[in-house]
Amino acid sequence: MDLAEELATKQRSISVAEFFEKNKHLLGFDSPTRGIITTIKEAVDNSLDACEEAEVLPDIYVGIKRTEKDVYRIIVEDNGPGIVPKQVPFVFGKLLYGSRFHQIKQSRGQQGIGISAAVLYAQLTTGIPATVISRTGHTSKANRFLIMIKTEVNEPQVLEQEEIDWDRMHGTRVEIEFKSSLAAKKRLLDYLRYTAVVNPHARIRADIDGEKFNFERGSDETIIPPKAIAPHPHGIEFGTLKRMAEASSLKLKEFLIEGFSRVGDKNADEIIGMSGLKPDRKAQGLKTEELKKLLDAMQTVQVPPPPASQCLSPIGEDKIVAGIDKEFQLDFVRSRTRKSQVFSGHPFIVEAAIGYGGKLESEGPAQILRFANRVPLLYQQGACLITNAASQVNWKAYNLSQQGIPIGPVLILVHVASTNVPFTSESKDAVAAIPEIEKEIILVLQELGRELKNYISRRDKNKQQEERARAVCSILPDIAEKVADIVGKPVPDTTSLEAQIMRKVVVKKKVSNGKVLISVNNYTKHPASLTIYNMSEDSASDAKPKPDFVDKIGDEYNKLWKVEISPESSWKTEYSGNSHGTVSVRGVEEKLLVVVDII
Amino acid sequence: MDLAEELATKQRSISVAEFFEKNKHLLGFDSPTRGIITTIKEAVDNSLDACEEAEVLPDIYVGIKRTEKDVYRIIVEDNGPGIVPKQVPFVFGKLLYGSRFHQIKQSRGQQGIGISAAVLYAQLTTGIPATVISRTGHTSKANRFLIMIKTEVNEPQVLEQEEIDWDRMHGTRVEIEFKSSLAAKKRLLDYLRYTAVVNPHARIRADIDGEKFNFERGSDETIIPPKAIAPHPHGIEFGTLKRMAEASSLKLKEFLIEGFSRVGDKNADEIIGMSGLKPDRKAQGLKTEELKKLLDAMQTVQVPPPPASQCLSPIGEDKIVAGIDKEFQLDFVRSRTRKSQVFSGHPFIVEAAIGYGGKLESEGPAQILRFANRVPLLYQQGACLITNAASQVNWKAYNLSQQGIPIGPVLILVHVASTNVPFTSESKDAVAAIPEIEKEIILVLQELGRELKNYISRRDKNKQQEERARAVCSILPDIAEKVADIVGKPVPDTTSLEAQIMRKVVVKKKVSNGKVLISVNNYTKHPASLTIYNMSEDSASDAKPKPDFVDKIGDEYNKLWKVEISPESSWKTEYSGNSHGTVSVRGVEEKLLVVVDII
Repeated sequence: MDLAEELATKQRSISVAEFFEKNKHLLGFDSPTRGIITTIKEAVDNSLDACEEAEVLPDIYVGIKRTEKDVYRIIVEDNGPGIVPKQVPFVFGKLLYGSRFHQIKQSRGQQGIGISAAVLYAQLTTGIPATVISRTGHTSKANRFLIMIKTEVNEPQVLEQEEIDWDRMHGTRVEIEFKSSLAAKKRLLDYLRYTAVVNPHARIRADIDGEKFNFERGSDETIIPPKAIAPHPHGIEFGTLKRMAEASSLKLKEFLIEGFSRVGDKNADEIIGMSGLKPDRKAQGLKTEELKKLLDAMQTVQVPPPPASQCLSPIGEDKIVAGIDKEFQLDFVRSRTRKSQVFSGHPFIVEAAIGYGGKLESEGPAQILRFANRVPLLYQQGACLITNAASQVNWKAYNLSQQGIPIGPVLILVHVASTNVPFTSESKDAVAAIPEIEKEIILVLQELGRELKNYISRRDKNKQQEERARAVCSILPDIAEKVADIVGKPVPDTTSLEAQIMRKVVVKKKVSNGKVLISVNNYTKHPASLTIYNMSEDSASDAKPKPDFVDKIGDEYNKLWKVEISPESSWKTEYSGNSHGTVSVRGVEEKLLVVVDII
Repeated sequence: MDLAEELATKQRSISVAEFFEKNKHLLGFDSPTRGIITTIKEAVDNSLDACEEAEVLPDIYVGIKRTEKDVYRIIVEDNGPGIVPKQVPFVFGKLLYGSRFHQIKQSRGQQGIGISAAVLYAQLTTGIPATVISRTGHTSKANRFLIMIKTEVNEPQVLEQEEIDWDRMHGTRVEIEFKSSLAAKKRLLDYLRYTAVVNPHARIRADIDGEKFNFERGSDETIIPPKAIAPHPHGIEFGTLKRMAEASSLKLKEFLIEGFSRVGDKNADEIIGMSGLKPDRKAQGLKTEELKKLLDAMQTVQVPPPPASQCLSPIGEDKIVAGIDKEFQLDFVRSRTRKSQVFSGHPFIVEAAIGYGGKLESEGPAQILRFANRVPLLYQQGACLITNAASQVNWKAYNLSQQGIPIGPVLILVHVASTNVPFTSESKDAVAAIPEIEKEIILVLQELGRELKNYISRRDKNKQQEERARAVCSILPDIAEKVADIVGKPVPDTTSLEAQIMRKVVVKKKVSNGKVLISVNNYTKHPASLTIYNMSEDSASDAKPKPDFVDKIGDEYNKLWKVEISPESSWKTEYSGNSHGTVSVRGVEEKLLVVVDII
């Protein structure tokens, strides 16, 4: 058939840049709107990873500037360790180039595709090269590059390179300009906010076409950077073992101990014994059948699980709660970090939090925040294992309505940290369905579900008590009146009694005989941290205790006391004077405050 | 910072084979069970594409054989045009190598990744090289190869190559052996069945670990192979235009006419005029700003849509209905092929079918069959645009229950054919969310939904009429009895009346005065094609009309009349005789038949 020859003339190699140029939606460039978020995400991921490796507290600037009708310039700048000049073109101008792909440890970027894909997208839509500035320290100058990608061969093309002065001591700045739109601004802000939630050690400043946003640090501790580990004998596949053996010059035992994590003297002997191979054999030169025996033995012999604590960096329960609290102000938040587990030899940790009430919408489905290796996942919620696992939990058992995911004022946060997060596509939008991870997510959500159930029933109980108290209070004035009538005395003031029953903070001011008395009773079950303001014509110079601050405004004195009052305790101050003036209080919820002026 | 230098030492290039070895789930190798289906799908896709290009009716053999506890050998053999020997190693031993990536036409394979990924998976899990046999025609011998992939560089490694005798005149056979399981056998059979449905010109034989399955051709017409077209001026991006211009030696006008589809003399002049460039300029050497002006003009000037009929190959309404009918035997099937549309310059066609009743489950969600370029999509239904679009249709308006997708005995088939089907990942499981495609799917399903509604209401109307008739019939005997009583006559036989009301076929036999009368009344609304058997001692030699066939069995004669009776018409035959015997009828549903023997 001549056709085979004819077809052969059309056969050719496809560069990975050509492939992703055509399939750009796989990398998160399916629309101009999305491209802007993908680019920022990839650049910020790189910045955070680099700062983590350098143990520097990240200080990241994100800028978006409209330059033409539908063209935006995206700028991301960090204070990381910088990139040596000879590497810069490859990092930004070649897909599948990076330092993290071959290392077994948790990192945000894994593939060496993301940021080069943004450069590719820019040259495809606008033809504008990327500008990169990088400086590796105060002893060297910064370098500025103009970079494009030779798509047909997936190699960088440097259009310009020069040394420049730069006020950052070290760090990297990238500017990429492409067709885009700011239609997804809300989602972009969500991305920045959620990134701040799970990276409390990072400071992120953003200037989105003139509008400024600041996400300040919640913590000044740097993250201990995860360390790369060797592969685990239980997770390795035949092809990888073969490659490792071929590249090794060691004898079997040393090969096993040095090449794999958790293999020591004893396990190594055991593995070699079980494989039936001679202990003095070299790893190099083993035949296929021999390697198969070795692999079988490696996967049979008991070995401890991979050293997850070295190579993974979970956020931690306290920091998750603090992050959620800072951003959402809920009535209830609990968080759990599970122990590390393993899938196909890759260690992973699942952590999660559940929040309730506050400003969350009381109707509609729960809000799900998904994270992988400290990166928020913004797209393809429906295709993600996290959503799917959350739908498998029987939330009705925890007194929540449910249509798949729970319904009501609920927030669910799940973070999957792994040396190899299995994503459903290169755009890293959704976690793929790995049974071991699924199980962990379900277990942690069940644990948190039980705690939420306890909270809700406690709250319901409190509500019931409050309602009863309210009923009692509503008849108190009547009772007081009747009793006063019977015993022939004036009707007493029941306010304080009511407040006591209702567990409130009561502030009273009384003026009599040239003395002013301000007293505060804290009937709640929580300590109260109050600021009490009194504005009147009295200077209160003889007050006991004295005001913490006095300000004269016109004829009046604004006096201010800062006080701490334990639960069910009281405080008072007294001074010479005759004027009532006004009393106001800060530091307690309005619904818990009663201010009484006794004449 | 020294760290930058240290980090630089870890930076390296990642080969695309390494990338996909680590991320094998992206290619559909996320589990051993799935690997087997993915491999067969990729190999069969290639076979069908090759046969289509050669205009050969495909005859494909699929074999699966267990060789060890959890190792299977997968064989796919075709009668396609074969592959010339020097190309074989690249086609099977290098990812991103192929003939279809750069061509703008509908094909199953697009990326040149699939089958090499299976070879990669085999060497990773078992270390066994792939065996490939290919022959390009009767004038040449077949070549047999043992192939592996050098993962670090993504290049083929040929372990053996020899000329062999092979009984196929032309074709290709591939054998790949890896860790797998047959747990998803049902899904595998679904894949083969659905492939047969949308490729009625293909014959597929399968031997699944000893069990044989045959999917015969439903049609002997070869498919007219789609032809590659040039890119459309409205869909091109800046980067692609720049590349094309740089590679061209033509002047602007010729460059436009020859490089792009639908650009003729007139539009070319118009584009150049609008761009403000001088007509005698060459495409090569245009500066970025000039190219931008040219692109703007190209995308503004009116040009007809891409020539979809050349480059696309929809299945067609009749063939879809025939395919569904063959596999599902439903009460109702309708199909629609929409006109071609365009997204980002890529032409596409949506066709769909809707089926109802038959053996479909009457409870539970509708069955959705998804296809892209004649390939069934088996995984990730939830993440697919097809499912999503089907959920957006208001099925309640067509009298169906709905929970997202419709509920009930409904089958929905959707086929998206395009020069560039946008998948959500390389494993090609789900169509990505492209608004233009979404709209077409919704429109075609709405069209079909209306037809289904008509069918269901007609059917319901028929049902209602039948119920009414049944009610009338149930009181007929009583009425007959009463009337007979009043007028003092014997009770008449109401059977025939009932049958008339119920729209049935009534066969009566009456023996009196030495004559036998057999009469048939067709009260239905359809013509009846009947065979009437009468077994009795009478020979019926004087019958008018005569029997079409008489057989003597013992003492009795079996007589047979073949008759056609129009709707609401009758037929009869009469002969001399005295015996009743038995009368039976074939050719009408039993529930529509009434046989009466009048004594």
